[in-house]
Amino acid sequence: MRILCAFLVFATVTSFSVAQEASMGQETKPLHLMPWPSDIKTSAGQMVIDPSFSVILHGTDPRLKKTAEIFLDDLRRHTGMLPLDFSTTEAAAAGHPALSVTSEHASKEIQELGEDESYQLNVTSSGAELSAPTTLGVMRGLQTFLQLVQVTPQGFAVSAVTIQDKPRFPWRGLMIDSSRHFMPLDVIKRNLDGMAAVKLNVFHWHLSDNQGFRVESKRFPKLHEMGSDGLYYTQDQIRNVIEYARDRGIRVIPEFDMPGHSTAWFVGYPDLASAPGPYSIERKWGVFDPAMDPTRESTYKFLDVFIGEMAKLFPDQFFHIGGDEVNGKQWDANPKIQQFMHAHSLKDNADLQAYFNVRVQKIVAKHGKTMEGWDEILRPDLPKSIVIQSWRGQKSLGDAAQQGYRGLLSFGYYLDLMAPAWYHYAVDPYGDGAASLSDADKQKILGGEACEWAEYVSPEIIDSRIWPRMAPIAERLWSPQTVTDVNSMYARLDVINHWLDAYQLNHNINYDIMLRRMAGSDHISPLRALTDVVEPVKGYSRERTGEPTSLMPLNRVIDAARPESIAARKFSLLVNDFVSGAIKPGMEAQIRETLTRWRDNSEKLTGLAANSSIVQEVVPVSQNLSALGTAGLQALDYLDRGEKAPDAWKTQQLELVQQAFQPKAQVILMVAGPVQKLIQASAGEKPTELEIPKTAQ
Amino acid sequence: MRILCAFLVFATVTSFSVAQEASMGQETKPLHLMPWPSDIKTSAGQMVIDPSFSVILHGTDPRLKKTAEIFLDDLRRHTGMLPLDFSTTEAAAAGHPALSVTSEHASKEIQELGEDESYQLNVTSSGAELSAPTTLGVMRGLQTFLQLVQVTPQGFAVSAVTIQDKPRFPWRGLMIDSSRHFMPLDVIKRNLDGMAAVKLNVFHWHLSDNQGFRVESKRFPKLHEMGSDGLYYTQDQIRNVIEYARDRGIRVIPEFDMPGHSTAWFVGYPDLASAPGPYSIERKWGVFDPAMDPTRESTYKFLDVFIGEMAKLFPDQFFHIGGDEVNGKQWDANPKIQQFMHAHSLKDNADLQAYFNVRVQKIVAKHGKTMEGWDEILRPDLPKSIVIQSWRGQKSLGDAAQQGYRGLLSFGYYLDLMAPAWYHYAVDPYGDGAASLSDADKQKILGGEACEWAEYVSPEIIDSRIWPRMAPIAERLWSPQTVTDVNSMYARLDVINHWLDAYQLNHNINYDIMLRRMAGSDHISPLRALTDVVEPVKGYSRERTGEPTSLMPLNRVIDAARPESIAARKFSLLVNDFVSGAIKPGMEAQIRETLTRWRDNSEKLTGLAANSSIVQEVVPVSQNLSALGTAGLQALDYLDRGEKAPDAWKTQQLELVQQAFQPKAQVILMVAGPVQKLIQASAGEKPTELEIPKTAQ
Repeated sequence: MRILCAFLVFATVTSFSVAQEASMGQETKPLHLMPWPSDIKTSAGQMVIDPSFSVILHGTDPRLKKTAEIFLDDLRRHTGMLPLDFSTTEAAAAGHPALSVTSEHASKEIQELGEDESYQLNVTSSGAELSAPTTLGVMRGLQTFLQLVQVTPQGFAVSAVTIQDKPRFPWRGLMIDSSRHFMPLDVIKRNLDGMAAVKLNVFHWHLSDNQGFRVESKRFPKLHEMGSDGLYYTQDQIRNVIEYARDRGIRVIPEFDMPGHSTAWFVGYPDLASAPGPYSIERKWGVFDPAMDPTRESTYKFLDVFIGEMAKLFPDQFFHIGGDEVNGKQWDANPKIQQFMHAHSLKDNADLQAYFNVRVQKIVAKHGKTMEGWDEILRPDLPKSIVIQSWRGQKSLGDAAQQGYRGLLSFGYYLDLMAPAWYHYAVDPYGDGAASLSDADKQKILGGEACEWAEYVSPEIIDSRIWPRMAPIAERLWSPQTVTDVNSMYARLDVINHWLDAYQLNHNINYDIMLRRMAGSDHISPLRALTDVVEPVKGYSRERTGEPTSLMPLNRVIDAARPESIAARKFSLLVNDFVSGAIKPGMEAQIRETLTRWRDNSEKLTGLAANSSIVQEVVPVSQNLSALGTAGLQALDYLDRGEKAPDAWKTQQLELVQQAFQPKAQVILMVAGPVQKLIQASAGEKPTELEIPKTAQ
Repeated sequence: MRILCAFLVFATVTSFSVAQEASMGQETKPLHLMPWPSDIKTSAGQMVIDPSFSVILHGTDPRLKKTAEIFLDDLRRHTGMLPLDFSTTEAAAAGHPALSVTSEHASKEIQELGEDESYQLNVTSSGAELSAPTTLGVMRGLQTFLQLVQVTPQGFAVSAVTIQDKPRFPWRGLMIDSSRHFMPLDVIKRNLDGMAAVKLNVFHWHLSDNQGFRVESKRFPKLHEMGSDGLYYTQDQIRNVIEYARDRGIRVIPEFDMPGHSTAWFVGYPDLASAPGPYSIERKWGVFDPAMDPTRESTYKFLDVFIGEMAKLFPDQFFHIGGDEVNGKQWDANPKIQQFMHAHSLKDNADLQAYFNVRVQKIVAKHGKTMEGWDEILRPDLPKSIVIQSWRGQKSLGDAAQQGYRGLLSFGYYLDLMAPAWYHYAVDPYGDGAASLSDADKQKILGGEACEWAEYVSPEIIDSRIWPRMAPIAERLWSPQTVTDVNSMYARLDVINHWLDAYQLNHNINYDIMLRRMAGSDHISPLRALTDVVEPVKGYSRERTGEPTSLMPLNRVIDAARPESIAARKFSLLVNDFVSGAIKPGMEAQIRETLTRWRDNSEKLTGLAANSSIVQEVVPVSQNLSALGTAGLQALDYLDRGEKAPDAWKTQQLELVQQAFQPKAQVILMVAGPVQKLIQASAGEKPTELEIPKTAQ
């Protein structure tokens, strides 16, 4: 589902970063928990974790042992202690550090929406206790315990702490699109690890679309044989992923998009479509004409068998039918369909799709599942049991809730649109159009899901589009609504970002690897210095400006560049303090040093560019960075001399800034904003924010 | 098998790095091939690789298609082009860049020793042709083609080149020990990828030892159930690895070490041993008493069934029985065994082991396999078909060859002993004690195998112990004996090192991740600056100085430090040039800058150390680095002033160097040597090499 209409105008990074004091109960050293717990009290002391550490399990849930094994494996990753060090026997614990784990009840065999995920954790210098009503709560508490592990002068240790914690929303998800670019199993599994680390509990798997049908169907084998270029998941692999997710407290919900977004189905089964075949796998991005024929009984027969097969494969209660973006052109052009609509008093394509949805919902229900779909499926003729996933926003959710429908928010959580973390962090399922709902209606809003659509990602890139920005969204959905301090979030995110490296998520490690490949050299400092301060163009502007197919290489600076430049953010904050007069010793020197490095960077980059077409592409960006460095240094000189910068100079420099902020090579130079502020300050003007140019939104 | 006796006295990095001119036929830009081909001619022009590139296959071998798929997948990794870009159809090739691949004959179903691996590769600006007598040769040629891919001003491209290539030795292996620390499947597979990239063709899998029995046995399930801590490979997983290796032209040879190194067998089957049980899995490193009882028929009955089962599971012709390091204590202490020896005129334990080997060889042969073992198994009563793997050296191999036995060299290729690349590179299977063999006897020397024993590696660390040093050994075994230029090797190794990153080998990426974990911080520059110039203690000195068990954490600086410090090597070369008068502009400034950084590093590191017991451990090393920096700068000052350094100062500084070169925290500061040279030069003395202290060998 694509947000096609309004896309938020991004302000530059600084506008939301008003300094607030982080006041989260830390007394000694900061704790890097994300999501932040509901209630936390720290005290003096710590429990040392050494190779004699053990976990003692209390509870009858057979899952408990596996849960402890996964935890111990994670603990090994985060300490470098070895495979055989830790035990789960009471005997081993005598006289040694131990974590006592109690699960009062087993969690459900098939994980359900709304199961209790709360837990209590108490750590003292003599031991730790974790207890929870269910093993799901134990899983969440163990992740908190893990995030408390820090290296100390005494070795690895956990600070003394008392935590009572529970999620704010029962549905906290991530959607991954495996259709537009196929994502191998290891991509899925490491992202499930990351999800578990930040307490997410729903993996929504977008498995079919125009560009690929990705699941083996034994009943309709031409679906995957002809619709996937050979890139699909076998049913055994699917089961393996579901088990892997279940072991981490994550539900897996499949999405098979229909009646639109379904070209890949028609390659093998053209009779499903509303126009004659043959069809081939779509290589372009966008919204396309092919749609299932909702007027033929054979369509529903097919779907009955297919949904029956998939309902068995995927144990979760919910079954996502997509339902978005049907442009209706095939329907308009098909006389039989027009005749059918007339005969059934269906006045437009929306009516026809509603007819289709009602039929499909009955099939889904027949196979024991609850139907889920995007905003478009919401029509009063569908039963109240269905769940609406909203890309339209809180107002849409609120309207649905008032009609009695449950929903979850994805508007504002589209990770592929390259928004900064603060933007996602500020989006609340109860915000905006849902703020004035009654408490009863609010209960209908189950939570939210971040979405990672796969037009511009490969297995090499996707992690960097999901992480670390997924973590603040996870916090929004887990933590109390009052946890909103952006500076605290960013400070913790810095740590969580690298914490996730332990799960082989490659959002950090692939950066240099990609830059080295672009440069054809190990000497990538100038290319890294540039890439550190750019961001890919936002929203759908990449699609608008040129690369409309799945066959284009994803190996350019835009592909390595981070959705949010942390270097630019930090420089921006520094300049904000500086121009607002909150000057600290060394601050100007630091700004000067950075500007000088940028000024001198372009010459160094030119050498690399001579050997690489890929680096060549960003030479104009590099020249702009250099020019911004020079302009910033001149501004500082004026400020240092206490001399107001001349108007002519100022005007010229501000034009330079505007020009430098225009996207080139489909990347945006994110330090144009702070340099503008230096120029304005040197001219005695009030610094203003730069808005991302329309061409890059 | 451990090298217990003489371990080479390492000179410092520079002693072998006499500058030689690389003269390898490159005319334009350097080619980063490793192993270097037998015959290569470059010419002008290049073939551009873009998404329209395709591979056209000629040949009837059904393996050819899979081979091309793996190649295209590798090409995607090395270019960032996407999953669907490349085709293998002739139609797609029309008018586009293409590689035509011809395999004259299928390679054997079960890969055999000595199959033809030669190939010819011809690249021009209009296209490329690869032809080989077998698909194995195609695999090798495709790796060469891949290594030729470089980014250029025109995009990714392959230089015009004509190559005729074939291996020098038919047996080019890597042994991985999965017993002492279990290595999950992904570790094995990514290392197989790396092996394929440098044209290795044998994966020797050390699957049982005192510390673990790692293969599922359906006939004797207590072997893996009781002997592995639950960490073993299922037979399905083994088959999967064998297929993965076969697809890359790599044979898989299992080793089940017997009659010694077998404690883990006895946990489930104590009756196999020469002393009564019970036994438990060994947690220490070293040579232990337990050994199979060679005097009981039940032992051979067991081995017959077991070897029969494993001979079916592992299709390769060779079956490795270990046979090393039996200390004989259980035999000496068992009256029945003594009685048996007397009755059979076996005068000592070596005779008894020979008796055992003869019996086992018959069983191995009965199941259709050729027996392989370490030096100790060589006795004239064994048939000439067996293969000896030598940890003793070329003399031992030569002696065996003269007796008619085939052998391969592992002496000098023990990667776990932390030797530098130049050391391994200088070891030749035809060198030393084998140099004077007749040509016929030389034919008995099949090649070599590098060994990675697993006392001090975890899945996080093992890649950095194997790579990149494995690559120069692979070159030694593949390339002509005349390819010996160390500087050329290191220049190419720099590139190959990062080339291997594409296979998810973590030898580079885990470095910062481990340092960050040690520091508990992202600000690791001072810790990295220190770790960059240290190496772990060499040989078996880690074992001697304290950590004798499998339960110790492997999370310290010694575990992150590289077996060979490239930073130290480069600094050493720079100082060599400087003190020998080969001074270039900027050279002194560069040396001064480096020394200053080291001098000032200790203060920065102290801050990190205050928060981390792991960093604390290397504070003394850091102080030494700082002192070396100061001493080096003072030496430069004397040289700059043209003033001979006073004797008292010189004496004091040389003592400092000696002290700084002593291992601390089990690491060696590798820049002591070049600083000594600066001091000597400033005192008007001839610079001398430092030898690694005895305590660190």
